[in-house]
Amino acid sequence: MTEHEHDHEDAYVVGVDYGTLSGRALVVRVSDGAELGSAVHPYRHAVLERCLPSDLTGGAEVALEPDWALQVPQDYREVLQVAVPAAVEAAGVDPSRVIGIATDFTACTMVPTLHDGTPLNEVDGYADRPHAYVKLWKHHAAQAQADRINALAAQRGETWLARYGGLLSSEWELAKGLQLLEEDPDVYARTERWVEAADWIVWELCGTYVRNACSAGYKGVLQDGAYPSADFLAALNPAFADYVETKVEQPIGQLGDRAGSLSARAAAWTGLPEGIAVAVGNVDAHVSAPAAQAVDHGQMVAIMGTSTCHVMSAGVLREVPGMCGVVDGGIVAGSWGYEAGQSGVGDIFGWFVEHGVPPYIHAEAAAAGRSVHEHLTALAAQQEVGEHGLVALDWHSGNRSVLVDHELSGLVVGQTLATRPEDVYRALIEATAFGTRTIIEAFTSSGVPVEELVVAGGLSKNHLLMQVYADVTRLPLSVVGSEQGPALGSALHAAVAAGAYADIRAAAKAMGSVQRGVFVPDEESALAYDALFAEYTALHDHFGRGGNDVMHRLRTVRRDAVRRRRTRKDAS
Amino acid sequence: MTEHEHDHEDAYVVGVDYGTLSGRALVVRVSDGAELGSAVHPYRHAVLERCLPSDLTGGAEVALEPDWALQVPQDYREVLQVAVPAAVEAAGVDPSRVIGIATDFTACTMVPTLHDGTPLNEVDGYADRPHAYVKLWKHHAAQAQADRINALAAQRGETWLARYGGLLSSEWELAKGLQLLEEDPDVYARTERWVEAADWIVWELCGTYVRNACSAGYKGVLQDGAYPSADFLAALNPAFADYVETKVEQPIGQLGDRAGSLSARAAAWTGLPEGIAVAVGNVDAHVSAPAAQAVDHGQMVAIMGTSTCHVMSAGVLREVPGMCGVVDGGIVAGSWGYEAGQSGVGDIFGWFVEHGVPPYIHAEAAAAGRSVHEHLTALAAQQEVGEHGLVALDWHSGNRSVLVDHELSGLVVGQTLATRPEDVYRALIEATAFGTRTIIEAFTSSGVPVEELVVAGGLSKNHLLMQVYADVTRLPLSVVGSEQGPALGSALHAAVAAGAYADIRAAAKAMGSVQRGVFVPDEESALAYDALFAEYTALHDHFGRGGNDVMHRLRTVRRDAVRRRRTRKDAS
Repeated sequence: MTEHEHDHEDAYVVGVDYGTLSGRALVVRVSDGAELGSAVHPYRHAVLERCLPSDLTGGAEVALEPDWALQVPQDYREVLQVAVPAAVEAAGVDPSRVIGIATDFTACTMVPTLHDGTPLNEVDGYADRPHAYVKLWKHHAAQAQADRINALAAQRGETWLARYGGLLSSEWELAKGLQLLEEDPDVYARTERWVEAADWIVWELCGTYVRNACSAGYKGVLQDGAYPSADFLAALNPAFADYVETKVEQPIGQLGDRAGSLSARAAAWTGLPEGIAVAVGNVDAHVSAPAAQAVDHGQMVAIMGTSTCHVMSAGVLREVPGMCGVVDGGIVAGSWGYEAGQSGVGDIFGWFVEHGVPPYIHAEAAAAGRSVHEHLTALAAQQEVGEHGLVALDWHSGNRSVLVDHELSGLVVGQTLATRPEDVYRALIEATAFGTRTIIEAFTSSGVPVEELVVAGGLSKNHLLMQVYADVTRLPLSVVGSEQGPALGSALHAAVAAGAYADIRAAAKAMGSVQRGVFVPDEESALAYDALFAEYTALHDHFGRGGNDVMHRLRTVRRDAVRRRRTRKDAS
Repeated sequence: MTEHEHDHEDAYVVGVDYGTLSGRALVVRVSDGAELGSAVHPYRHAVLERCLPSDLTGGAEVALEPDWALQVPQDYREVLQVAVPAAVEAAGVDPSRVIGIATDFTACTMVPTLHDGTPLNEVDGYADRPHAYVKLWKHHAAQAQADRINALAAQRGETWLARYGGLLSSEWELAKGLQLLEEDPDVYARTERWVEAADWIVWELCGTYVRNACSAGYKGVLQDGAYPSADFLAALNPAFADYVETKVEQPIGQLGDRAGSLSARAAAWTGLPEGIAVAVGNVDAHVSAPAAQAVDHGQMVAIMGTSTCHVMSAGVLREVPGMCGVVDGGIVAGSWGYEAGQSGVGDIFGWFVEHGVPPYIHAEAAAAGRSVHEHLTALAAQQEVGEHGLVALDWHSGNRSVLVDHELSGLVVGQTLATRPEDVYRALIEATAFGTRTIIEAFTSSGVPVEELVVAGGLSKNHLLMQVYADVTRLPLSVVGSEQGPALGSALHAAVAAGAYADIRAAAKAMGSVQRGVFVPDEESALAYDALFAEYTALHDHFGRGGNDVMHRLRTVRRDAVRRRRTRKDAS
């Protein structure tokens, strides 16, 4: 044992992973990454999709339009107040031995605040204004703005556009900000800071607002030190010209840097020592790569949960069509960090189990003593490739890569009266695997080869799903050693911010873990999947690249119909 | 009251409607069509789709290939033995006052028999042979044969082809017979008569085998007095050359004619007087038109149950692309009888409710004291047109008209994580309405205008569905007065066969009933549906007319995979 390691033999860090529905705190030993205790706290208001919560609006009924997804900032604070102390207690460590805390967050998730970080929904008179709330990553109501941004950027030849595969997502800061301006100019005017939740929570912890390089680059369109120009913004909407200057610009912190010190208020919330290191914010996907020791070129990390995020480091800068983005140092310093994603994966399986699986399957699952997911997986695992006769498109939550279009929607082709729930379940799993293959092929054919798939996130526990991914992609699948990859990744960044390791690579080597080649492709299945992937690709291109724009038109039809019904209701 | 009517004031007839899952007997007063009593008897073996019933095979496990659908002839006899006496008892009439019996059947439903009518599955040594059983109308495993029949007929310029809209269905006698020959030549050789179930049950009743003009024309390809030629049959398969001559040809009976007299054996089964009139067989759809008094030109009768059959009389002979067929006197003597159909309608809704509706919907329905169908309908009825954002293709059981292709399959476009079961339910209802509109437009644009839609069958009770059909088709909807249209139609034919009326038109006037214009189109909804119908048509043509043959390929993939699994199972 070296002297340096001995320093941290009894030192701990806390990583907090903010997911879509809950936050998880994890206490980790600095010396070896041992996970000593964790706790989860669900967000009281979960995701707001139909209306604002009446406990916040003072009883007013405020309905949301289709495709909205909001959250409540106070729910994030409660994770610090509840989950962090619970994790420390579960770990059985002396809180005074905790030397740092770091957080990762869903992204792009945007909080409109005053200049001091107060969320607008907490400001008098704004609690009943949907635009005053947090726009969650899967808020998909800004597609019209994204379309205009993309068209204008292409027309003007904006150089940053290629860094995002040629298309910015409606999920990102710019589209969401433009929607805010155009739909509620008053709330927009009151928004003094337009803050990534990843940075807002760090601001809450240490009282300092530092923008993290990761989300500033991937979601905020900061490239080569500059945001989109005031000219460009004015051409989108004259009132948007000063958007960057007045609401966005802020000092940048690199990943693993110290943003500040834990404030007295946050120390009281968490029970941790005041003054310990608070790391610069980070994004749930990106923070997972070092947790899986996947910091080398060609190692694509897929963080598979409600959605899937793909991150990969590479030594070269290439323009990959339809990727989410490439950012210098976006994952680890010294490499180009690439990101792509699928906006619905576990969400799709969850939606299907909740809304599409009949009572007899629930009863069978209960009788077998397993969850509905486990039961459907077991039934589906008995099938040969192609036996269900189905092929699906995995766009129930839109397409983040490579089409970058959240007006797309799901599709299942081939259903007959003989189709059973496990058939559809398997077809949906396969569709998400085809989606991943589509992304991998976009990288590989652009000169950024993918040689290994490293899986993190909850879905790695589903062995059928993992085998399908190996067969469909013809890649060996490694699995992150931790079941709490993002939280471990955050803890690792806390250790670097606290000065326990020189950099992220060193911390990854000491604290991260991975099992290599857990699933390998079966050639017979891979061949059978080639045929189905060809079908997927034909449907993908037909419905996603303009062969038939029915999915876009149906969105418009739906929005018009919802408005018509509301007008009728108001009139009656 | 005329003397003629007085004769039948206390005379009754029995109509027996053989459906897909059960047979229904109805006792009707001859003078005015009053329905006095009925009884239903479900088929003991229902539909065989996965395996032969072990009680008949002597315990042997005999699996069926995908797309098979078989039935058991003895189940049909039991309807005569159970439902007919029960209906007479329920009616409270003196059985000696029953003057005739008539039956209608699903079609094309084929029984392979010996020369005396014994079904082959009842012959020693044949009970474990799938091909020895009844091939139900929805047996869809003869598509390969149908494709060859159609290609050859087109190539040879067979004149009868246009009478079937240019395509024979895989559901029909010829494709099913060719499949029998090619897959089990031994059973084919043993098949001395290849009999429509509609005629087989009449044979059972009176001991005489008479082919009815309706199914001989529509399903048996009898046109202008001739079946397909031996030359044509030989070109399909040399062993098929004498198919018509040796297994099919038989005297033809016109609808409403007397086939014979009730035999002593059948009198004992039914409790009806020996020697009363037994009418020539008929098909469930066609027999419903006179029950609804819909015997005039332009009145399309839609018999909506598990599937939908459309029948209409017209004074002109036209070639309607994709229709099921046109037969001289196929519905009523003196008119050209047109038929079209949708092979899955109520079946699709039933499949969805059984396999795609989650427990919470079942619980809500139970709490509201209504069936799941009723509950989903009530939820869906609250929506504006287009609000669910979906468009579906109604091909879960293939397409009978106008594509005539049972390798097609279902499709739902537009699903998102916000999609709920009632959304899909409504989209499926709408898809079947679009299917009906597609058929109506094929008729109208071919010079056979449709001016009124007369609905019979169980689905007419669903008011949402009926309003959707009115809005989608922009036609007024009339509803058959009887809830048991086919059984009443059969009773009406029994009355004619017994000599109580001069012809079907006279019997329809006295015994049939209809409510006119029960549902009328709402123009605002109709306009909204025009846009969705355009989407339906684009998908219909893309997937149904060769734009993307994925549905066909998925069928092949599925069959290959099932065989692969069976081979593995056998090998293990």
